[in-house]
Amino acid sequence: MKDIEVVTIKDISLKNPVMIEGLPGVGHVGKLVAEHMIEELEAEKIMEIYSPHFPPQVLVMNDGTVRLVQNEVYAWKSENVDLLLLVGDYQSATNMGHYMLTEAFLDIAQKFDVKRIYTLGGYGIGQLVEVQTVLGAVNDANLIEEMNGYGVEFKENEPGGGIVGVSGLLLGMAKRRDIEAVCLMGLTSGYLVDPKSAQAVLKVLCQALGIKVDMLALEERAKEMEKIVAKIQEMETVKMPQDAGMEEGLGYIR
Amino acid sequence: MKDIEVVTIKDISLKNPVMIEGLPGVGHVGKLVAEHMIEELEAEKIMEIYSPHFPPQVLVMNDGTVRLVQNEVYAWKSENVDLLLLVGDYQSATNMGHYMLTEAFLDIAQKFDVKRIYTLGGYGIGQLVEVQTVLGAVNDANLIEEMNGYGVEFKENEPGGGIVGVSGLLLGMAKRRDIEAVCLMGLTSGYLVDPKSAQAVLKVLCQALGIKVDMLALEERAKEMEKIVAKIQEMETVKMPQDAGMEEGLGYIR
Amino acid sequence: MKDIEVVTIKDISLKNPVMIEGLPGVGHVGKLVAEHMIEELEAEKIMEIYSPHFPPQVLVMNDGTVRLVQNEVYAWKSENVDLLLLVGDYQSATNMGHYMLTEAFLDIAQKFDVKRIYTLGGYGIGQLVEVQTVLGAVNDANLIEEMNGYGVEFKENEPGGGIVGVSGLLLGMAKRRDIEAVCLMGLTSGYLVDPKSAQAVLKVLCQALGIKVDMLALEERAKEMEKIVAKIQEMETVKMPQDAGMEEGLGYIR
Amino acid sequence: MKDIEVVTIKDISLKNPVMIEGLPGVGHVGKLVAEHMIEELEAEKIMEIYSPHFPPQVLVMNDGTVRLVQNEVYAWKSENVDLLLLVGDYQSATNMGHYMLTEAFLDIAQKFDVKRIYTLGGYGIGQLVEVQTVLGAVNDANLIEEMNGYGVEFKENEPGGGIVGVSGLLLGMAKRRDIEAVCLMGLTSGYLVDPKSAQAVLKVLCQALGIKVDMLALEERAKEMEKIVAKIQEMETVKMPQDAGMEEGLGYIR
Repeated sequence: MKDIEVVTIKDISLKNPVMIEGLPGVGHVGKLVAEHMIEELEAEKIMEIYSPHFPPQVLVMNDGTVRLVQNEVYAWKSENVDLLLLVGDYQSATNMGHYMLTEAFLDIAQKFDVKRIYTLGGYGIGQLVEVQTVLGAVNDANLIEEMNGYGVEFKENEPGGGIVGVSGLLLGMAKRRDIEAVCLMGLTSGYLVDPKSAQAVLKVLCQALGIKVDMLALEERAKEMEKIVAKIQEMETVKMPQDAGMEEGLGYIR
Repeated sequence: MKDIEVVTIKDISLKNPVMIEGLPGVGHVGKLVAEHMIEELEAEKIMEIYSPHFPPQVLVMNDGTVRLVQNEVYAWKSENVDLLLLVGDYQSATNMGHYMLTEAFLDIAQKFDVKRIYTLGGYGIGQLVEVQTVLGAVNDANLIEEMNGYGVEFKENEPGGGIVGVSGLLLGMAKRRDIEAVCLMGLTSGYLVDPKSAQAVLKVLCQALGIKVDMLALEERAKEMEKIVAKIQEMETVKMPQDAGMEEGLGYIR
Repeated sequence: MKDIEVVTIKDISLKNPVMIEGLPGVGHVGKLVAEHMIEELEAEKIMEIYSPHFPPQVLVMNDGTVRLVQNEVYAWKSENVDLLLLVGDYQSATNMGHYMLTEAFLDIAQKFDVKRIYTLGGYGIGQLVEVQTVLGAVNDANLIEEMNGYGVEFKENEPGGGIVGVSGLLLGMAKRRDIEAVCLMGLTSGYLVDPKSAQAVLKVLCQALGIKVDMLALEERAKEMEKIVAKIQEMETVKMPQDAGMEEGLGYIR
Repeated sequence: MKDIEVVTIKDISLKNPVMIEGLPGVGHVGKLVAEHMIEELEAEKIMEIYSPHFPPQVLVMNDGTVRLVQNEVYAWKSENVDLLLLVGDYQSATNMGHYMLTEAFLDIAQKFDVKRIYTLGGYGIGQLVEVQTVLGAVNDANLIEEMNGYGVEFKENEPGGGIVGVSGLLLGMAKRRDIEAVCLMGLTSGYLVDPKSAQAVLKVLCQALGIKVDMLALEERAKEMEKIVAKIQEMETVKMPQDAGMEEGLGYIR
């Protein structure tokens, strides 16, 4: 049994595509952005990736059929830029699997002559976000100025705990293959799925890629989420009127 | 030391047998059904499967002897249908072991030219089940209509968390070997061993296989269990009379 | 780096020795017995066993020097019976390591033509033991009558949870190499190191081996332990006079 | 993917260097000492060590760039003694990784003909340290007298729990390659980063190496830390005036 199996669904040729990673993580920010792009751009699935390092389970689809937990690569072609979008159900369930899967993703990137990777994620701050912010990290200092131009912020020693999982490893390991890589992190509470933070990240990414993506679906999800948050705050205010500072925080309800 | 060791106890030839998996899981529903069938049909043990991915322990038998934790394959022949029944003490204790063992089970299935697999399990809903229901999932949409005919229900996105362990992986991985596979899940509270749910699953399975299996033993276990549940409810009612909704739920008493 | 490294300290020839395993476990009963035997019989160390499956640490000796965590084999020769004693600092820290180490121990047993293995352990019952009892489990039903003769008790389905770790695996895996193996378990609370339970096991073992071992040192440790237990009971009586049943149990103070 | 990858940054020849290990551990005492030495002595980085056994993450530097979690080797040459300093972000995240990394570190030591290794760490005692003490452990009893001469103390059976991680394994495994090794442990509460304990260890180490290292930076960090400790004690006194013994302990605030 191989540690990683890459199944090619469709052969395709791309022109120095940009790779975009949006696997599950804090606030599902990266996942929301990448899956939204796949849907709006009608990107095409070209690869499925299986591994015994993923959780040992299958997912049940709407029609009652199942499929193995997997990661997937989608492709999209346009006049200005080609894209490879990396999404999936889970990240690795083992420590070493994270490293192995990242190597496999970079092998795919090299096969398609990828020159730049964007990894997308959320940056949990433990309280409701008032001003949407996109924090950046890069694997080459020369990228910072360009990213600043798209409104990406860089703060000393943030995130303090580093960047965990594939979003981080892709930056660190792409460096050794001479591929530029940027991590875009939307500020988020960290307690809930956060489509509003995803919108902020998507805006930056569209600017960086020079493409347009309809945001209506994300906006609607963000509005629904705001209603849920408002309800939670109301419940907390009723239950704990003595704790005046409580409206600010959400508590850990995930 | 090999990851998996399959010891053949008896050589036997079968005619396109159906494979039935009933390893331990939620409410031990699958295990109850498969072990009941082995006993009632007097199926014959043909294989023992050992693995260092199982918990490192032995079980003590009634006569004071021990045996290694193992999985077992039993065979049963009849005019209409031959069966391979997969049962065992435990599932894998490691993440990767689940994938490896599933591959080994499918190697056995292919060796016997299995065309269809039924995996059996429980679907925990966190409260007492009022109407016995058997939920299904398949690895080929064409199977749904047939299963509906046996009373199996399919609900969108259920189980929401997917199907964990060998019962799920067998479906996902059999698909890639062109073997049809169905998972039958009996609704169960998830807190107790549930012979009543096992009865519901067995009824569906007998219909699907076109065989008859005496259910008396399962019925008796179900009655005993009902007495236990009634006692627990009584205790809870006495202890917490202030909580009027409590008779509905069982709490986590496993 | 090898999974297991066996370093021979001294070459020795033995006459069909009996192997005795006393690695750390419940109440340290097996460890107390085996180490007491090594000391009283002045057995000689002949092997050291190292493995990256052991916890990653060294122990500090009385003189300030360190040594790697290890398992050890001691040998003892007499007119009637030769012994191989297996002791150590820890059991495996990984699931698969237990299986691998047991295979290595059996390779050693076979090299010395061992025909019988005794594994020693404690059987935790969660309360103070009133009558010292030695419970048995065997890997061959023919051994039960002989063991009964030494006062070993066999109870249906006990221990219910099976026998975990090397003491259990040795029985299960020795069977497949045609080596007789018996597990002797001293009843113990499971909360404290239990030299009194060790005495009971040692008495049975001496009878089975037809040898004599001075027990004074174990008796003294048992007396000290009894004083500690008495103090704990006293403290509990003072602290929780409202809980009348408390003198019976010790609570989890390990 | 290899278990360990050693990347040589600079080729250098050294004269029987002494190796000094200061990876993260209790109170970060070893890390503080080794990193302080690297800075003050202006040692030069010669190797980077990567491993999938490290946590799967990258660290974000001050300038917004990232780097993979790694261990590093620095070199320093002087007339009297040459040094190899081993530092890093993390120790292994897996059990076996500790053993594998220690082997890799010893391969490096042998390549440079290292005759002696000092591993540095903290010895947590669970309360504020009143008299700075450096506890020792060695892999050769002949080293004790020399170490006593530098003020290192050796106490029977301390540390009782052994020495966990690379600081311990290096001693145990160097012994088998005939390399002398000493572990110097600064007494520390175990709750906070402890530059004062680091100073005590550094003093001993300078004496042992016959070198001088400016301590001003460590002294300043120690003073800052003392202010923090004083504040914590104050807060505890105010919050729990009823607990008279509380000023002595810090509680677990890490």
